[in-house]
Amino acid sequence: MRKNSVIMSVVFLALIGFSIIPELLHAQIPSQIPDALTVKHSRKSVRKYLDKPVSKEQLEILLRAGMAAPTAGDKRPWSFVVITDPAMLDTLSFASRGARMLSSAAAAIAVCGDKSAGFKSEVWVQDCSAASENILLAAEAIGLGAVWIGIYLNDEPTKYVKRVLGLPEEVFALNIISIGYPTGEEKPKNKWDTTRIHWEKW
Amino acid sequence: MRKNSVIMSVVFLALIGFSIIPELLHAQIPSQIPDALTVKHSRKSVRKYLDKPVSKEQLEILLRAGMAAPTAGDKRPWSFVVITDPAMLDTLSFASRGARMLSSAAAAIAVCGDKSAGFKSEVWVQDCSAASENILLAAEAIGLGAVWIGIYLNDEPTKYVKRVLGLPEEVFALNIISIGYPTGEEKPKNKWDTTRIHWEKW
Repeated sequence: MRKNSVIMSVVFLALIGFSIIPELLHAQIPSQIPDALTVKHSRKSVRKYLDKPVSKEQLEILLRAGMAAPTAGDKRPWSFVVITDPAMLDTLSFASRGARMLSSAAAAIAVCGDKSAGFKSEVWVQDCSAASENILLAAEAIGLGAVWIGIYLNDEPTKYVKRVLGLPEEVFALNIISIGYPTGEEKPKNKWDTTRIHWEKW
Repeated sequence: MRKNSVIMSVVFLALIGFSIIPELLHAQIPSQIPDALTVKHSRKSVRKYLDKPVSKEQLEILLRAGMAAPTAGDKRPWSFVVITDPAMLDTLSFASRGARMLSSAAAAIAVCGDKSAGFKSEVWVQDCSAASENILLAAEAIGLGAVWIGIYLNDEPTKYVKRVLGLPEEVFALNIISIGYPTGEEKPKNKWDTTRIHWEKW
């Protein structure tokens, strides 16, 4: 009986351990999120990642931000394919020369548009671009790094991603957002340029 | 001489007054900007405004946010036409049925793309959409309300805005972002929908 209860205790503790430890390892949501303007100006394209996983909870924060974007006529013509499987990330890294970093990413989100769900044929591109920007900003906000890998408008990558992800006929990946913990090497650019501003008229 | 110095003092104080008072009236940047995730979820399309001006300083915050967005190949194929003149806002309100609120807006920013400056012919739409989302979020962050009025892809509005704003041949307005102080009536939508998420594959 004594041996049994020791075994039971070990099994019990092991079960608790296995269920809690991954959560502790993965769920690293900062308790303080920086302010919205700071995040906009600290966001940068992050292509180099630490060898550290991101959690489902973190990815859900990004997805929630994506779905908070506005869409034309409130049609929400979007879907999101979330990839965390290293083999799948590796396969996707061959979509284009600009997609190589996916092989070392912890996760990716393909932001997809449904041509049949949009308000007009190509307006989903604008809607999904706004959602993508929200995802990039949310990643920066919670201490992750991300980069927008353009897919749509590039014929071969478009076909490749459609096939690999098994997208329906009317659904296209606008981009793949590559996600991971930044190494800290990449810095934001200052792109402020007053020559691009016209007051009242061009 | 005494009379002169009194006059001089009055003129001097009036000059200070005229230069400072509008700044105090207009420059209402909150000292505390809400966090980036809160702003994403509190942003809504604001079409009803208080009769209250927005300052150049506030508009510059929005423009800075816009220019912090990522662009394909870092080409930054954007320009921004900022409109504060009530007569011009009124003229622009006739661009489309969806543009009517411009007549009561305090300001507007037409986010324009230069087809000749982009990485590929139509990729400017994605770049300018990301910039537009940054502007909408920055407006929410500093207590303003804004709405994205789609122009590009709509033939008549595209021509009308091009003519009214005097845009060069290769430059197109993706949208006009209408800006003002919100009345508080409009609330954010909860658009979270797990059926739009696919894990690993469609």
